[in-house]
This record gives sequence, structure tokens and C-alpha cells, in this order.
Amino acid sequence: MKDHGEKGASVLDDVVKALSSHCDDSISPLKRKMVAEPLPSRDAVIEATELVRSALFPGYYGDYQFSPGAMPHAIGTMLDRASRIFEEQMLRAFCFFCDNRRDACPSCPGLARERTRDFMKALPRVQRLLMTDVHAAYLGDPAATCPAETVFCYPGIFAITFQRIAHELYLLKVPLLPRIITEHAHSATGIDIHPGAAIGESFFIDHGTGVVIGETTSIGRNVRLYQGVTLGAKSFPLDKDGNPIKGVKRHPDVEDDVIVYAGATILGTVRVGKGSQIGSNVWLTRDVEPGSFIGQAAAKKS
Amino acid sequence: MKDHGEKGASVLDDVVKALSSHCDDSISPLKRKMVAEPLPSRDAVIEATELVRSALFPGYYGDYQFSPGAMPHAIGTMLDRASRIFEEQMLRAFCFFCDNRRDACPSCPGLARERTRDFMKALPRVQRLLMTDVHAAYLGDPAATCPAETVFCYPGIFAITFQRIAHELYLLKVPLLPRIITEHAHSATGIDIHPGAAIGESFFIDHGTGVVIGETTSIGRNVRLYQGVTLGAKSFPLDKDGNPIKGVKRHPDVEDDVIVYAGATILGTVRVGKGSQIGSNVWLTRDVEPGSFIGQAAAKKS
Amino acid sequence: MKDHGEKGASVLDDVVKALSSHCDDSISPLKRKMVAEPLPSRDAVIEATELVRSALFPGYYGDYQFSPGAMPHAIGTMLDRASRIFEEQMLRAFCFFCDNRRDACPSCPGLARERTRDFMKALPRVQRLLMTDVHAAYLGDPAATCPAETVFCYPGIFAITFQRIAHELYLLKVPLLPRIITEHAHSATGIDIHPGAAIGESFFIDHGTGVVIGETTSIGRNVRLYQGVTLGAKSFPLDKDGNPIKGVKRHPDVEDDVIVYAGATILGTVRVGKGSQIGSNVWLTRDVEPGSFIGQAAAKKS
Amino acid sequence: MKDHGEKGASVLDDVVKALSSHCDDSISPLKRKMVAEPLPSRDAVIEATELVRSALFPGYYGDYQFSPGAMPHAIGTMLDRASRIFEEQMLRAFCFFCDNRRDACPSCPGLARERTRDFMKALPRVQRLLMTDVHAAYLGDPAATCPAETVFCYPGIFAITFQRIAHELYLLKVPLLPRIITEHAHSATGIDIHPGAAIGESFFIDHGTGVVIGETTSIGRNVRLYQGVTLGAKSFPLDKDGNPIKGVKRHPDVEDDVIVYAGATILGTVRVGKGSQIGSNVWLTRDVEPGSFIGQAAAKKS
Amino acid sequence: MKDHGEKGASVLDDVVKALSSHCDDSISPLKRKMVAEPLPSRDAVIEATELVRSALFPGYYGDYQFSPGAMPHAIGTMLDRASRIFEEQMLRAFCFFCDNRRDACPSCPGLARERTRDFMKALPRVQRLLMTDVHAAYLGDPAATCPAETVFCYPGIFAITFQRIAHELYLLKVPLLPRIITEHAHSATGIDIHPGAAIGESFFIDHGTGVVIGETTSIGRNVRLYQGVTLGAKSFPLDKDGNPIKGVKRHPDVEDDVIVYAGATILGTVRVGKGSQIGSNVWLTRDVEPGSFIGQAAAKKS
Amino acid sequence: MKDHGEKGASVLDDVVKALSSHCDDSISPLKRKMVAEPLPSRDAVIEATELVRSALFPGYYGDYQFSPGAMPHAIGTMLDRASRIFEEQMLRAFCFFCDNRRDACPSCPGLARERTRDFMKALPRVQRLLMTDVHAAYLGDPAATCPAETVFCYPGIFAITFQRIAHELYLLKVPLLPRIITEHAHSATGIDIHPGAAIGESFFIDHGTGVVIGETTSIGRNVRLYQGVTLGAKSFPLDKDGNPIKGVKRHPDVEDDVIVYAGATILGTVRVGKGSQIGSNVWLTRDVEPGSFIGQAAAKKS
Repeated sequence: MKDHGEKGASVLDDVVKALSSHCDDSISPLKRKMVAEPLPSRDAVIEATELVRSALFPGYYGDYQFSPGAMPHAIGTMLDRASRIFEEQMLRAFCFFCDNRRDACPSCPGLARERTRDFMKALPRVQRLLMTDVHAAYLGDPAATCPAETVFCYPGIFAITFQRIAHELYLLKVPLLPRIITEHAHSATGIDIHPGAAIGESFFIDHGTGVVIGETTSIGRNVRLYQGVTLGAKSFPLDKDGNPIKGVKRHPDVEDDVIVYAGATILGTVRVGKGSQIGSNVWLTRDVEPGSFIGQAAAKKS
Repeated sequence: MKDHGEKGASVLDDVVKALSSHCDDSISPLKRKMVAEPLPSRDAVIEATELVRSALFPGYYGDYQFSPGAMPHAIGTMLDRASRIFEEQMLRAFCFFCDNRRDACPSCPGLARERTRDFMKALPRVQRLLMTDVHAAYLGDPAATCPAETVFCYPGIFAITFQRIAHELYLLKVPLLPRIITEHAHSATGIDIHPGAAIGESFFIDHGTGVVIGETTSIGRNVRLYQGVTLGAKSFPLDKDGNPIKGVKRHPDVEDDVIVYAGATILGTVRVGKGSQIGSNVWLTRDVEPGSFIGQAAAKKS
Repeated sequence: MKDHGEKGASVLDDVVKALSSHCDDSISPLKRKMVAEPLPSRDAVIEATELVRSALFPGYYGDYQFSPGAMPHAIGTMLDRASRIFEEQMLRAFCFFCDNRRDACPSCPGLARERTRDFMKALPRVQRLLMTDVHAAYLGDPAATCPAETVFCYPGIFAITFQRIAHELYLLKVPLLPRIITEHAHSATGIDIHPGAAIGESFFIDHGTGVVIGETTSIGRNVRLYQGVTLGAKSFPLDKDGNPIKGVKRHPDVEDDVIVYAGATILGTVRVGKGSQIGSNVWLTRDVEPGSFIGQAAAKKS
Repeated sequence: MKDHGEKGASVLDDVVKALSSHCDDSISPLKRKMVAEPLPSRDAVIEATELVRSALFPGYYGDYQFSPGAMPHAIGTMLDRASRIFEEQMLRAFCFFCDNRRDACPSCPGLARERTRDFMKALPRVQRLLMTDVHAAYLGDPAATCPAETVFCYPGIFAITFQRIAHELYLLKVPLLPRIITEHAHSATGIDIHPGAAIGESFFIDHGTGVVIGETTSIGRNVRLYQGVTLGAKSFPLDKDGNPIKGVKRHPDVEDDVIVYAGATILGTVRVGKGSQIGSNVWLTRDVEPGSFIGQAAAKKS
Repeated sequence: MKDHGEKGASVLDDVVKALSSHCDDSISPLKRKMVAEPLPSRDAVIEATELVRSALFPGYYGDYQFSPGAMPHAIGTMLDRASRIFEEQMLRAFCFFCDNRRDACPSCPGLARERTRDFMKALPRVQRLLMTDVHAAYLGDPAATCPAETVFCYPGIFAITFQRIAHELYLLKVPLLPRIITEHAHSATGIDIHPGAAIGESFFIDHGTGVVIGETTSIGRNVRLYQGVTLGAKSFPLDKDGNPIKGVKRHPDVEDDVIVYAGATILGTVRVGKGSQIGSNVWLTRDVEPGSFIGQAAAKKS
Repeated sequence: MKDHGEKGASVLDDVVKALSSHCDDSISPLKRKMVAEPLPSRDAVIEATELVRSALFPGYYGDYQFSPGAMPHAIGTMLDRASRIFEEQMLRAFCFFCDNRRDACPSCPGLARERTRDFMKALPRVQRLLMTDVHAAYLGDPAATCPAETVFCYPGIFAITFQRIAHELYLLKVPLLPRIITEHAHSATGIDIHPGAAIGESFFIDHGTGVVIGETTSIGRNVRLYQGVTLGAKSFPLDKDGNPIKGVKRHPDVEDDVIVYAGATILGTVRVGKGSQIGSNVWLTRDVEPGSFIGQAAAKKS
């Protein structure tokens, strides 16, 4: 009986030793700075993002209802809480990449405070954009019975809300947090929009599963996408080690009033001209004139 | 130091003022009726749906185990709780669209009570359908080791269970709730079946991510779909403002014993005849005779 | 008033009776053995898998931070807890398929203990593989700013971590648990890798939604996939009742250094030779020589 | 095996039958009105009381911190939420005693709304009283290092805060809720103050376990009590069935500046004159002149 | 920087070593059997007790409301769950004291199953007793506005409910669990009734803080106690090492219709005769004739 | 309808204004420093204390079981987590009283780190003391069936464990935290031991409700107390404003082997000599020779 316990303990100790010693700093953040500094917390970042969403759509989301007369208090409380969380999480993210110990860092705390304030100031603009998106979703889907339904449960609204919030943080050069936010939406909706993508008003994605929109994409006003659409990179310039070079323009520019149907793939730094429609499952790697309709070859009967 | 606090407070107040005043009733439900009435709660709707699912598959789902001898009590308790939640949530949904104050509405409370009862009565039928679906999943997937495994973790079973429940509410003309239910399944599985779709027995979706089945689709018995299949609308009739008209038939009719392979797209009010097979990635916008096999052009070597 | 209550009670009783009596053992596990034995708990299995993940990537995941000096204690505690949960859940899974009552079963408890120990011993190997995957993700995506970002939020890392853990349980012939684990990752990421798939080091899936990798697939080193790729079965041999036969080789072998672009579909027991690239949306059902590039026919303008 | 299950089920059914049929309306509220109406929820009442407490002591209690500049928003949000909970719980409490069905009651909803508003209006007065209590606690206990410490963790502050809140509801003749609130404080602190007791400013109870203050007690300003003090009833007038008559004055009047030491028992409608001190363990059932010191007989050596 | 981390780690390791090695089996249960067997879980025992309480008072306690027509199902579900928890916790408690490994113990599992069934059978009797207690509480306290109020929030009802449940387990010689149950009530109410005490119907404790009722106490019908009453042991026979001998009769017998006022102390194997009243703070160590009134010497003025 | 909303909003705004403006810094910590700095969190302090308790009694408390072979890892993990929480909470407590902003304070962070380390070093000593207390509880109570039972559920063990932990923090001059810890135990057990009290080994409190032990009390070895015992201050020296002077010796010294029975009150700087016994309800304000027995006057019959 005792043997059994000892045998188990010895297996445990062997595995612990192996896992502790083999991990390098790609797999354990603790190997970078030999002190315990908190990493950004995904749960906290998502909580703060949801608070901001609740403040942008007052009454739709969030833990509880409030009275119409208490709306400013509710918004103020949610934003105050969100900004406190964001400031702390930004600090963690900045300090993850800086060489100082957090409690002796001369720059990260001030940076986090300032960027949080800039982020808050951007929210009215984000709200105005989202109102156009809700309108576009209601108009764009014959199955939508009212705008409220799209706010309640349309994955496209979920994804664009999170992306627009993340995009503001991306513009403020906050590391890690933007991607955490959009990947949360990706997980919940299957819609993967990089925080870097620049997206105009009245944007609507229907169904959405499998949509991918790359970092350097730009999208004009009144654009509608369906499930499975990729706005991706065709190829990446490689460095001398054969690895992709980071940060260069490599995704499409989609102009106003474009519709891209389900499963279409648009790759590279191509321009899709104003008012064009790209058909289902089309594979496109060249510029398209304004007003074009690009369709797939029809299926053949076997 | 004091300045810092005051500056933060002033930014907060500005943003609060902007967010409160700009939101119209598309973005805040509180702007519709100037009293605080509870909106349907997604969490509550999902909880009730999960309770119903636990009652339909007694012993598989739910918070806790029960003894075989206590099965009727367990089912009764879950259904009682589910029906109480559904009645309240239906009331909220009906009242969201009605012009009366909830506590003085002559019709919504009675409607919610009656529809809840009708919904409960439909459950034995739903259970019988789901038993055929489980059987179909087990037979249809060579990797399935037993029916239990499909109930435990197959996304196709998850999605069809939620859709069949939502479909009953759809037939009862309950607003908002059906879509909340199917969008939850969409988020969890990547399978997006509109609550309006009419689906026959022994239905199986394998893998499932990216499947889209539109509102006015009808599906016969013994149909099998794979991931990425779209049963969608080809185009929508537009009204005079150029917006899609709501509520017309616009999706396919898929007959008995059809298989649709991964990534196929079937659009419009087409008929896919009994026993047909639609190949992977096919794009189909016309009727298909019973017994057809439709395949894609082969890939070419570059 | 009283009528209302009685009417509700009578509907409830009717539905309870129907649901209790109609369910067979495909829909209720309680119908198999007429005693209440606990089924595997999905929540527990996922918790244990997450604990293992936290031990493999010390400091990135998990409920709380720990100090660098406490790393071995943290890993030991997480593994001890994970192994206790896995032993219990394996016992439930083994006993679900065995004919004995659990508290009088001569074999399942010992089996669960032994397999748990074997599983723990495999973890250092799993960790080494995952370190190569993280490296591959960082190098493979121009948008990745550091390896940490890929661990934090890349769905490809999530999916391959869960699959590598599940694969070890699959090799140990543990029922139900492996599929529960990979389906959790499928739900969170849209990436559906069967626990049976054998995957070499430095594997990277970008974006990932809609990826399907079948049970008998083998994948070499340094392979990269994009969203929507299917490595599936072309057709299944049917038994005399027309149902698929379980357990035969039916999926592709993908060799080292292959890249498969978004939406490509590779079906059947084909070989994709070393260093090949399969283009976006390609549909492929035959062997491909090493070093090939297979592309789709270009879209045509309508 | 099967027998075992059936035997268990039969025991269960017997017990269920016995428990369902024997309970009368003292033991089950469902026997009163034969419809399911929600009873007041203790958890909800306590949550609302804690929200009010957080609003009265801004920054000390509650789930989260807020910035000084956000204080009004935080207070507004907490009070809005508290008032919504109280209105619902009052409605339940009023309807528990009324003969109408809740959804057709002409009076309870309006009553709940009005009483909630009256209660909110009383809060500034409650806050002013509590500030004097905190001051008294800090001055009265040589071990208190700062007023904050008494707010953080002194049971006397906990108990008087809950009582002062409950007392306002008591004055508004709200049933059930006041006692739920003071019994929660009783459970947490061992201090049992009836919501009916009228207590002046600068009140302090040190240690407090075992203190009992009866419904018709009145207490002046600047009074200090120690643990185990009873301000109780001496005897109750009995009705013709030998049961106590409800609602008559039966507890002491304690005037300004009185100190009552540990374990003293003061019973009946006696007056303890201004500035008196009642010694430890004294048993007192008669009036005491202002400025008296009443002590216990000294212990004797055995 | 590194030094700091290492220094912290070394302190940690020293403390871990000291705490691991010094603990004997009084302070760590793991030192008894050198395998990891689950101890009874206080949380589980309390959860099961609360479920039983909810079943005894249908509609008053518990997580959720149910409809009158669903009462038997609700009771059945709660009792089934409670009995499953109790069976597991009894097994743990029995095995804590037995020398076998739990998974190879020939007696404890059967014992747990049987005692659980006996316990369930006793519940209708417990319910009947509790109904008399609720009646007694309502009649005995002039401040009680209705029986419901006493069920909702009277600590005396809380304490006697938990004790009556624990007493049944005590009679069944289940170790550890009864005391866990009564100590939970003690913590919540300040009323400490040993599970061994035998208590007749219509028992009422008012206020209750500080009440102590010892293991071998017997109490008749219609007895009322106030806060701070002790029914304790006068002295214990000591064994040859000077330690108290376990298990001998050492507490009072209180007959029908007795009232004991606040703070009275009754010690030893004395008899308090039918209908007697014991005054506040009295210290009593001798038998009392039926119908006596025992009072304290009056306080003197200093 | 609109009026109702506006009226409610205006009441809310009035109350918010009143509560925000009237609160001074005794009632709101935010009024001290005009920035938002986190106060110590009671929940966090209690969590850390419970982790330390779990480490001191390995296997008895805490969220989960661990295997005997994993004991050092479990202890290490709990202590690492506890020390991280304590360091943060100490920092908050120190900074609450210091004049610097937390993020620019030159002394508090270092102080918190150092005191946390000193606290950890004291734990082996605390464990040794607690082992003697468990032994004393088992020997001292004839109803205790095993030492484990006293650890599981005796309030006396709960209270002394928390006090011994708090006492170490008190000795390290950590503000606020010690009192938070002992008041938590006070709330759970009714036993109120000030963190400053110096208590020797083998200490046992039976039942315990109502026990009060003051800040400057000293207690020798092998002392036993019963419920309701007070070791308090007789009177406090007052300052020129008539308020008690803080920090002077004012409580009893109780020597080795003393027993104090239920309800006894010992006040002032008196000495209770070795081996004495103080009877139930005795009121004692003078020194007692070693070996004395002090009893109460017997009750008289009315």
C-alpha cells in the first residue's frame, strides 16, 4: 500500500523535474525576468472589454438592469471600472516587454495611465460607428426582426464591437491586449478580424463563421461580408532565414459598398473597387474595377 | 496629485455625457419605453434551454447525477424550472415589442403562460426526433465509438438539439428567444441553423464548423451534411429603398437521404432531389434531380 | 386560480411521463445499468486538461500567478490534481463500457490508475513538442509580435495543445475522454483535430476556423495549415447494412514542410509529398509528389 | 443489482409522499396560495442591504474600487440597483400577506414603489447617524487604531449599520424584510438588535456577542454597550390562550450617555437614567436614577 | 534582482520542509493511511443538510422556486441528491476510521448505503417535529408576525432544524457528520446544540446566541430557552491520566413545559421538573421540583 | 409614465448628491488621498489566512485533496500564493497610513516584502503551537471522538488558529490585517480574541460563543476556557477629553493550567495564579493565588 503511494510520488517528482527544467522562455514567462510579475490576465481584459461594450450599448449587455434615470451613473460606473482594469492590464503588457522591474519602472505606469485616458476619449467615436453597424445588420439580413435582435445575438455585431474596441488600443500601440480581445471574439463567433484592420462605418458580416480579415486590410463604408470570406495575405516577403518579415502591407483594400459572398478568398494587396460584388467561393488575387461582379465557375454534373 | 484625479474625473464625465446622449433606440433599449423593463436575459434563456436538453437526454447533461429511481422527479424538476424561466423570458420578449407597460399589459402575461404550456407539450415529439439524430450520428461517423460519445461531445448533436428546441418556439411565434438559442449553439459549434428551418428525423452534421442553414430551408429525413455547407439565399428581393424584404421563401428544399459534402454551397429556392449527393466545395444554384451526384471540377497542378 | 395550478401540474405530469418512458439507452445512460454510476464529467475532464496545460506552459495559464522559486511546487500541485481527476474520469469512462458494477469491478480501477501514470510520464515529451509549435507559430505569422502572444491567444496553439494531450490518452486506449478534450478545443477555436491524428513537431495552424483533421491522418514535421483546410476521408467502406465500417485508414499522410492554404480539401488515403504547397480552396483526392505546388483555377469575371 | 435500484426508488417515493402531504402552511408557503409566487429572497435582500451600506460608506465596502471622481456614479449605480431589488422584494413581502394574485393585485405594486422611494429618501439621515457611530467606536475602544479599522471589521459597526437600515423599513411597515436584515447581522456578529428598536446617535457596542435589544427598546445618544448585554422583556401579557400578546411596549428606555457593561441584563419597561453605568453581569428590572452606578455583588472565594 | 527571487525561494523551501516534516497525524490526516483518500467535505455535508431542510420545508429554502404542482418532483429531486451526497460522505467518514483502503473495504460502502436509507426513512418524523417547533416559535415570541417569519430568519428554527437532522445521523452512529452539521448551525446562530441531545416537540430558543446544550441532555415537550442558556456538564470523571472519560451521562434532564431565561446555567445530571421556570443568569447544579421558579439574587446598587 | 421615470431619477440624484457630499474621511477612505488607491481587501486577507491554515494542517482544509507524495508541493503552492497575497495586502495597509502615493512610495513596498518574509518564517513555530492546541481540545472535551473531529469543526480550534496567525502579524506591526483576521474568526465562532493577546501552548476553548480576550492579555500553558468568558479591561485611563488612552496594559495575566468556566468575567490587570479554577459566571477584578478555586454564590429559590 505504501509502495503505491511512493511510486506515484516518484513519478510525479520525475515529471515535475522534467517540466521545470526543460521549459525555456518561449514556454514560460517566468524565465524572462527572474521575479514574479503579473502577466496580463485574459479574463480581466475581457471583463473590461465587456464593460466598455455595456457602456456603448447602454441596457443591452452587462450583469444587471438599470433605470433610465440612472443611465449616466451606470455608464460612469462601468467606464470607471473598465478604465481601472485597462490601466492595470496595459501596465502589465508594457512591463512584459520592458527591462525594468515593474515596481521600479520609470515609464510604464505613466504610459498606461495616459493611454487609458486616450482610449476612453475615443469611445464616443466608437459608439457612433457601432450605431451604423447595427443599422446595417438590420437592413442587411431579411431574417432580422428588429435592430435589438442583432445587438442581442448576431455574431457579426459581437465581432465588430470587439474589433472596434481592440482597434483603438492597436492604434495606441498597446501590446498583447488588442489581440486578446479579437481572439475572444474569434472564439465566440468564428470571425477572426485582426485588431489592425481599418474598417469604415455600416459594416456587416452575416453568419460569419470562418471569416478572416488580416492586419493591414482596409475596408470602406457600407461593406457586407458573408461566412467564410478571407481577406488575407497572398505571400509574405521572407527574411534571409526564410521567415516572414513582420509589419508590411500585405492585405486587400476593400472600397465602399462592396459585398463579398460566402467563402470568397481575396488575397494580397489588391483593391476591390467601390460597389463591386465578389461571388461565393471566388479566389481572387488581382485588382477589381469599381462596380464589377466576380463569380465562380458553375458546378458541373458528374 | 489632486490635478490628476480631477483630470480623470473630467474625462470620465465628458465620455459619460457623450455616450448617454448620442445613443438612440437602436443602441439602447431604454430609449424606447422610458421605464426600466427587463429585457430577455440571454443567460436565463440558455439556462432554460439546457434544462430542457437535460430533461430530453436524462442523465447526460446537467449539474448533477440522479438515481434511476429518481428519474421522473429529476425530469419534473428540470421542466418545472425551465417552464418558469421560459414564461418569464417570453413575457419580456413579448413586452419588448408591445406598447403597454409590463405591469399593466392586458395580453402579454397570458400569452407567455399559454405559449410556455404549448412548448412543454411539444417536448415528447422533440425527444423522439433527437433519438433518431443520435442514431444517425453514430451510424454516420466511422470514428464514433458509441452513441453516448455523440451525445457527450458531438457538435452536430449540440446544434440540432438547440435548433429543434428553438424551432418549437419559432413555430409558436415567440420573438427573440429562438434566435438567442440557435446563436448560442452557433457560438459553441460554428454551426448556424436558423430556428425557422424545418428539419426531418435522422439528421446528422459531421464536424460542422461553418455550416449555415437559412430560415426558410426545409430538410427531409436521413440527411447528412459536412462542415462548411451553406444552404443559403441566392439573392433577396429588395424593397423600394434597396433593402432586403423580410420573410419570403429564399432557401433550398433538401429531400430525404441527401448527403452534402464539406464546403458545398447551395443557394436559393432550389430542390435537391431525394438520395442526391453534392460534392465538396460545389456551388449550386439550380434544382437537382433525385439520385444525382454533383461534383467539383478537379484541382489542376500549377 | 386553483384550476390554473392544477392544469399546469397535469401538463407537467404528462410530459414527464412521456419523456421518462420513451427514452432508450441511446438517449439516457441510466437505461444501461440500472444503478446510478457517474458518467465522465466534461467539466472535470476539461479542468484536468487545463491543469496539464498550465503545467506544460508554467506561468501562462491557470488561476493564479506563482513566484519563479515556487515553480516546481506549482507544477507538482497542478499535476497531482490533474492526475487525480484523470484517474477518476478514466475510471468512469472504463466502467461505462464494462458490465460490472463500479464498486465491484475487478479491473477498471487498476486500469485507470496505471493509465494515468503512463499519461503523466508522457508529458515531458508533449512539452518538447509544444515548444516547437510555439516557435513555429511565431515564425509563421508576420503579425505575431512575440512567442508569448501566440501562447496567450492563438487558436492554433490552443487546438494543438489540447490535441497533443488527447492524443496521448488516445494511444492509451482511454475511451470518451480524448474526444471530449478535442471537441472542447473545437468549440473554442473552430479547429477540429481528431485525437487519433499523429502530428509531428513544429506544427502551426493560422486562423484555423473550419480546419478538420481526421482520425487516421498523419502529419510530418514543420507543416503549416490555414483556416478551412480539411484533411478528411473520401469515402468509407460500408458494411452490409450500408453503414460506415469503423477504424480503417481513410485520411491523408502529409509529409514534412508542407503548407496547405485556406480552404483546401484533401480527402482519402493520399500522400502529400515533402515540401509541397496546396493552394487555397483546392480539392485534392490523389497523391502529390514532393515539392509540388497545387493551385486552384483562377476566378473568372462574370 | 436491479433490486437495489428499485428498493432505493421505493424508499424515496414513500418519503416524498409523506413530506408532500403532511406539510401544512406553516411549513410550506405553497399551501397558502395555490400558485407559485416568489417569496422574498434572503440573498436578494442582503445584497440590496449591502449595496446601500456601500453607498453610505463610499469606498469601504462592495465588490470593487472606484476613482474619487467617479464617486457619484458609483453611489448612483449602487442605489439604483438596491432600489430595484428592494422594490421587487417589498412587492413579494406585501403580496405574501395579501389575498390577491400578484399579477392582478391592485395595491401591492404601487405600495412597493412608493415605500422604496421613501426608504431612499431616508438614507442621508442614516448616513449622518452612522458617521456619529463610527466616531463613537473609535473613541470608545482603546484598541482601535483609526476610524477606518472600525468600519472595516468591528462587529458593532456592522450590526448598527444593518439595524439602522432595517429600522427605516420597519418604520415604513414593510413586512419580513427588516427582520431578515437584522438576523443576517445577528448571524454575522452575534448581536441581535430588533429592527423596531429606536437608537440615537453615537451608539457603540464593543465585542458584542450575545447582545440582545428588543423591539420596543429606546436608546438615547452616546450610549455604549458591551458583549452579552440584554435589553429585554421581563414578561409578556398573555392572551386568553396563554400566548404572548403581540405589539405592546415591553422593553427598556435607555437615556443618553449610559454605559452597560458585559453580560448585564435589563428587563422590562424600565428607565435607565442619563449618564448611568450598569455593571457587568448585573440583573436589573427596575428604574435607575440618572447618574447611578449599578454593580454586581463581588465574587466569593470558595 | 535575481538574489531577491532566490532568497524568497529559499525561505519558501525551508518553511515547506519544516511544515511537511513536523506534522503528525493529529494535524494531517494524510499521515494515517499513506494513500490519498478523500476526507468528508464540510461543504458537501452542509449542502446535503440544506437540501434536506429544503425538502422538509418545501418552498422556503433552496436555490429556486417551484410550482405547487411540481412539489413532489422538487422534493424527490432534493432528497435524491441529498441521499447521494450523504452516502458518499458517510463512506468517507466510516473509512476515515477503518483500517482498509477504501477501494478494497468490504464493509464501509454497504454500511453507508444502508444508513443513508435509514436516515431518509426518518425524515417524515423530523418534519412533524419541526412543524411543532415553528408553531412554538410563533406563539412564543410577541415580535413574530407570522410563522413564515420564523422559518425565514429565526436562528432558533435554524439551529433546531440542523440539530434534528444531525441527531438522526447521531442515532445511526455515523461519525463526524453530525458534529459538522451542528457546528455549522452554531457558527451561523451562536446556538451550540450537540447532536446527541434528545429534544422533544415544540421546542423554541429565542435570540439564542450563547446557548449550549450538551451531548447527554434530554429535553421534554414545549420547552423554551433564551439566549446564553447553558445545559452543561458540571464536572467530568477523569481517567488515570487526569483526562475526561468519554461517553458518560453528564448533562441535565429538562422536563415538559420548562422555561429557562437568558444566561441561566444548569450543570450536571440534574432534573428540572415539569413546568419550572429558571430565571435569568441563575447558576443551577441541583434538581428542581416540578413547577418551581428559580430566580437570581437582585442586583445591588453601588 | 414618463413622469414616473423622471421622478425616480430626481429622487436618486438628490440622494446621490447628499451621500457624496456629506461623507467625511471617517466614512469614506477616498476623502483622504484624492486618488484611488486600493484598500486592503477583507476577502483577500481571509483567503490568504485560509491558505496558511491549509498549509499548517495539510490535508484538512482547502479546496482540494492532494496525494501524500505531493504534500510538499501542495504546501509550497499554498504558501507561495498566501505570501503573494499578504505582501499585496500589507502594502495596501501600510500605504493607507502613509502620506505618499503608492506608486511613488519609497518605503512601503520594501516593508511589505520584508514583513511577509518574516511572517512566513514564523509559521513552523505556529504549527507546533497548534498541534498542542489540537491535543488539548481532544483531551479536554469528553464529546470529542478523535483529534480530527476537533480540527474539522471545533470553533475553539478555528479561533485559536486564526488568532495565532494574526498574532504574528501583530508582532510585526502590520496595521489593519490582524484585526480583520480575528474578526473573521469572531464572526464565524463568536470567539473574540484580540490579535495582541499572548497565548501559550495547549490552549482550549470549549463551545466558545461570547468569549472575549483583550489586547494586552497574557495566557500561560495548558489553559482551558468555556463559553462566555471575558478576559477584559476594568476601566481605561482617560485623556483630557475624557476618551480612553490607547495602548496601555489593561487586561489579565492568566497563568499555566488555569480553567475558567462558562460566563466568568475577569477584568483588569489582575493575575490568575497557576492551576486556579474560576467558576461559572464569576465576576473577578482582583488577583487570585495559584491553586485557588473561585465560585459564584449559589442560586436561590424564589
